[in-house]
Amino acid sequence: MELTRRHALAAAAGVAAAPLLPAISANAAAPMADKQAPSFYRYRVGDILVTVVSDGQNVFKYEDNFIVNARKEEVAAALEKAYMAPGMMTIYFAPLVLNIGGKVVVVDTGNGPVANKNSKGANGLFADNMIAAGFDPAKVDTVVISHFHTDHVNGLLTADGAPAFPNAEVLVPAVEWKFWMDDGEMSRAPAGRMAGLFKNNRNVFDAGLKKKVTPYEWGKEVVPGLLAVESIGHTPGHTSYVLSSGSGKVFIQSDVTNNPNPFATNPGWHAFFDQDGEVAEKTRRRVYDMVVAEKLMVQGFHYPFPGLGHVEKDGSGYRVVPAPWNPVI
Amino acid sequence: MELTRRHALAAAAGVAAAPLLPAISANAAAPMADKQAPSFYRYRVGDILVTVVSDGQNVFKYEDNFIVNARKEEVAAALEKAYMAPGMMTIYFAPLVLNIGGKVVVVDTGNGPVANKNSKGANGLFADNMIAAGFDPAKVDTVVISHFHTDHVNGLLTADGAPAFPNAEVLVPAVEWKFWMDDGEMSRAPAGRMAGLFKNNRNVFDAGLKKKVTPYEWGKEVVPGLLAVESIGHTPGHTSYVLSSGSGKVFIQSDVTNNPNPFATNPGWHAFFDQDGEVAEKTRRRVYDMVVAEKLMVQGFHYPFPGLGHVEKDGSGYRVVPAPWNPVI
Repeated sequence: MELTRRHALAAAAGVAAAPLLPAISANAAAPMADKQAPSFYRYRVGDILVTVVSDGQNVFKYEDNFIVNARKEEVAAALEKAYMAPGMMTIYFAPLVLNIGGKVVVVDTGNGPVANKNSKGANGLFADNMIAAGFDPAKVDTVVISHFHTDHVNGLLTADGAPAFPNAEVLVPAVEWKFWMDDGEMSRAPAGRMAGLFKNNRNVFDAGLKKKVTPYEWGKEVVPGLLAVESIGHTPGHTSYVLSSGSGKVFIQSDVTNNPNPFATNPGWHAFFDQDGEVAEKTRRRVYDMVVAEKLMVQGFHYPFPGLGHVEKDGSGYRVVPAPWNPVI
Repeated sequence: MELTRRHALAAAAGVAAAPLLPAISANAAAPMADKQAPSFYRYRVGDILVTVVSDGQNVFKYEDNFIVNARKEEVAAALEKAYMAPGMMTIYFAPLVLNIGGKVVVVDTGNGPVANKNSKGANGLFADNMIAAGFDPAKVDTVVISHFHTDHVNGLLTADGAPAFPNAEVLVPAVEWKFWMDDGEMSRAPAGRMAGLFKNNRNVFDAGLKKKVTPYEWGKEVVPGLLAVESIGHTPGHTSYVLSSGSGKVFIQSDVTNNPNPFATNPGWHAFFDQDGEVAEKTRRRVYDMVVAEKLMVQGFHYPFPGLGHVEKDGSGYRVVPAPWNPVI
């Protein structure tokens, strides 16, 4: 096989005359061709239609304390094995829109319009992509929040701080709500990241939504077909879901892992963003052993888009095998 | 973890009143929500913009002779491991559109409009999806064909048999052209599949294109940046490509394997659609050893959409690790 690059155009073998061509193609410069496809993807779970809507990505240089219980060289090797550029980590974000029982239900809301501006369009894409997918934010009936990190809640507000889903009931985990709205917890929060999260949550839920939310309990369906299940550790009230209809069933994991490579591959790693690393690891192993045993497909908020996969045991960890893209539904 | 499905809506904990909701969501029934996203995906290779455009899929019950040198139980086990439904196989199709050196270049054309009708829209989606991606078939400068199977050439014609890319030069592998246009070869072709392929190729290239094609040679660039490389066995003139610009390089494999799971996983398998199974296997191993050694990403026509992946050795075979979807370019 000849792999040397040659710059000469292959000589035509002269069998037939080529048709006359325009010297410059008008199409080559078409503006559409310079934009990624609006990143949404649909699949069915029984009677439920799931639309995965990308909120974009965050590519960043990771710090020494990115994984608090692993050496930097180990982390570097794992990320290189996951085909990331040296020293860099990529995190993806994918909220869901469900057509379920005649209602439109949003699950998590992405980084929001301020992050969209600050990231120069790398994330905060949920609003635009959900509109591209044919949804009107004003017609969303219900928004379900899994936990109170910025990449899940900041899309609840528009750029000017108003509710982004003005006619929706906003459902939040009762335990999560209690933790972040507790003034004592806020006063005891370490300066920096945790204090910033409290401040952000007060801005979103207090200033923005005027506390118009409905807390929900684990072990119950938040909407018919969407069962809330406890999966704490990442945050005190972190919630996953079992989505089911007829014989269809998918486990919506939220942040049980972040990007599966390296975090499903290395389930013992405690990332700085897991509030309680020990508990998060226990949850991760419990959930992944369960989805492997039950052969449940997993929808991961931080899996690469479109984020639906099968989970297999792989040595001491797990491997997420992306479900093939179905070009028709 | 409580996985029992409960049909009662979670009782609201009563912290705040929910806003009034319309009884039925107008959005839930919106027509867009029932269609898959137009399946195209863009990435850059140096200065070249690649748009992968799905032509859809073919889900079929495989016959005993699907793999000519493996027992049916082995095949069944491998396909089940690849998460296919019992007895079923899925094949995906993904032609490319390249913005390259000021021109618009199509690489392979999918199953075409007749297959689109016959498959009830499961495949033959290339034309619609390329238009959704912002391309005008009338403004395509060049069409490059890898080999003369129906899923690669039938998109060259419209439903009424006219050229689908009326202003494009059509480039074909010289060896492939010679084989399928040879009347002696056609007369010796076994009845059934091979005779059907000859008939189809005469219809596409003779009746449809009036032989207005330009044969190209291996080891040369068919357009600047797109090097044609011999990868025979699947057909006598089967061609792959190295696409390169600056430091960017991708191996466009065409049909060196079909769906990588099971065909990269089991490189020794000879599928009925490999015209010379022995030669196809030799090519497959040579190409995959090369892409592993050179760490070349591979774009596969039959890989699940969007079909770009890294290749790793995996036991006696290979594993294709899909590249994560980049939501922005």
